[in-house]
Amino acid sequence: MRAYNFCAGPAALPTAVLEKAQRELLDWQGKGVSIMEMSHRSSDYVAVSAKAEADLRKLMNIPENYKVLFLQGGASLQFSAIPLNLLGKNNKADYIHTGIWSEKALKEAQRYGDIHTVEAATQIDGKFAIKPEQEWNLSADAAYVHYAENETIGGIQFKDIPNVQAPLVSDLSSSILSAPLDVSKFGLIYAGAQKNIGPAGLTIVIVREDLLDQAKPEIPSILKYSAQAKNDSMVNTPATYAWYLAGLVFEWLLEQGGVDAIHKINLAKAELLYGYIDASDFYNNPIAVPNRSLMNVPFTLANADLEKLFLKEAEEHHLLNLAGHRSVGGMRASIYNAVPLEGVQALVDFMDGFVKRHG
Amino acid sequence: MRAYNFCAGPAALPTAVLEKAQRELLDWQGKGVSIMEMSHRSSDYVAVSAKAEADLRKLMNIPENYKVLFLQGGASLQFSAIPLNLLGKNNKADYIHTGIWSEKALKEAQRYGDIHTVEAATQIDGKFAIKPEQEWNLSADAAYVHYAENETIGGIQFKDIPNVQAPLVSDLSSSILSAPLDVSKFGLIYAGAQKNIGPAGLTIVIVREDLLDQAKPEIPSILKYSAQAKNDSMVNTPATYAWYLAGLVFEWLLEQGGVDAIHKINLAKAELLYGYIDASDFYNNPIAVPNRSLMNVPFTLANADLEKLFLKEAEEHHLLNLAGHRSVGGMRASIYNAVPLEGVQALVDFMDGFVKRHG
Repeated sequence: MRAYNFCAGPAALPTAVLEKAQRELLDWQGKGVSIMEMSHRSSDYVAVSAKAEADLRKLMNIPENYKVLFLQGGASLQFSAIPLNLLGKNNKADYIHTGIWSEKALKEAQRYGDIHTVEAATQIDGKFAIKPEQEWNLSADAAYVHYAENETIGGIQFKDIPNVQAPLVSDLSSSILSAPLDVSKFGLIYAGAQKNIGPAGLTIVIVREDLLDQAKPEIPSILKYSAQAKNDSMVNTPATYAWYLAGLVFEWLLEQGGVDAIHKINLAKAELLYGYIDASDFYNNPIAVPNRSLMNVPFTLANADLEKLFLKEAEEHHLLNLAGHRSVGGMRASIYNAVPLEGVQALVDFMDGFVKRHG
Repeated sequence: MRAYNFCAGPAALPTAVLEKAQRELLDWQGKGVSIMEMSHRSSDYVAVSAKAEADLRKLMNIPENYKVLFLQGGASLQFSAIPLNLLGKNNKADYIHTGIWSEKALKEAQRYGDIHTVEAATQIDGKFAIKPEQEWNLSADAAYVHYAENETIGGIQFKDIPNVQAPLVSDLSSSILSAPLDVSKFGLIYAGAQKNIGPAGLTIVIVREDLLDQAKPEIPSILKYSAQAKNDSMVNTPATYAWYLAGLVFEWLLEQGGVDAIHKINLAKAELLYGYIDASDFYNNPIAVPNRSLMNVPFTLANADLEKLFLKEAEEHHLLNLAGHRSVGGMRASIYNAVPLEGVQALVDFMDGFVKRHG
């Protein structure tokens, strides 16, 4: 049987998507070969890749003056590619620091330019929160402003899109496609696929056309957005199977009714879990309500000695991967698009039973 | 039914490997989740990834003082990563030019250092060949010597490993695991997975330990061999599913008897196909016998007007992807490890029937 998988990433995929992939794994649409055995330049594969892009454009309502790239290397390679592509002539950027992932991005950017760090983490009544943009003191001449829209490890998320002058660049790895988003507010959006898009090994970059063509001379050719845009992300062989699977996920999302529909389910999941945690004396979430992540819900147990038992019993209930990130400990439930409401209900039921047994 | 797939890459995978992947796609070893839904840091996944490395070490007899890295970005990203990691203090390297892929590698390297190009292509009796190393005029102080062991597009391959002073760096994308290889003769070997290893999106780098730790300061952090070696190729999330599939291919190869056994089959396949072409007045292979590729067999038809018909009829016979690379035209049969002898026999039978019908 399939378990409920709360892994932060590589994360759960929709069962219907895996079933379709399974059916056609050896013989794609009667062609006698697997889709992963096809040339990326074949007309069949090009149609698959183009459909995936078209479906993503539909799902996110991506304006025509944005290029959508299907790349390799993870968000971490984009930590380098972004400054190498976008620092432009003055070599300055602002990076908003709200947690572990935004810190990784800014540390890598510091290797390439003059980076102004905005410390945006704060506390409200003992809970972690993000300072409003009025307190950020942005540079007047930054080539761009970078932030991590959702901190996967900390479980802290921006309430609104910041309203800034410079092009906005955002790591949306763990929140893309979970809620409606006005892409036109951004200069560049990037996301590792392994949370809400598909398997690890694929990275989506959505970039406004006027930001192409300003790469630094030392950039590895494969990382140049302009070249990848010109070649439909096929400067070299892309991660064809991961791209195909992302396409199946996009089709599945459209079948669910698109981002608006999945957002309603995500809100219901989050309300259920946060609501239960808030009503409990035993569980605690450390994030201030306005900045709570819709996707990653960290929580602690009143008695930390019970953590191992919690994980063991959860596994026995087919509720997997609830341990917090190794850098912070505690628990974390990642409730991405592919985790159904029933999975969150099963988690809450288990958590409640656990308190009654051991709390 | 499964066709015989002669694609140059992404290429055919062993049917038994795809069948195993299909069986466990939704539920890996009764864990209730797909292997592609598992954290790369989970003990289950780490065991899978470590077993893949151990099996590759066994297959290739890789000495202990070499690190094996499972990376993303394709061989093309290594065209940048290699000079960024290995050019060292004097910034000089020799690149042997034998075709399209070695040219791509050297053009990218020229962006980072002082590259001496050795034009090693020549002709023997009107057939393409590679000049012997005695005629190469290598630099006295190169940090390394780079060559493409097998040119996938041209179908030209080195007969022996060159005997040079500097560390030898080789692109083995289309020949790795097809024949025994003395890894200890190399400083670094790299290969995109999508020919003899697994699906596109994975790149193997085998690097001698003493060559680590000399990266240029501008290198993107993810591309640093030293960092990836220290972190078991998990500085960030690797292409977990592609790595798993590579592991299945390695297990399959061991079941076949390893590289020596598959090499015998590859020799039989090549003898059959080249033998038929050489005995024919209608088909022609443009490469001198000593430098003919074991894996990629380009050939032309006496009447080029028949090419489209050849491809159409081949497809009707379930013989797929025989068109030559778009840059050179003609035909090409890639006969990687996963293409069985029966597939090559079926191709030869078809080629013979085609001549009789239209020649």
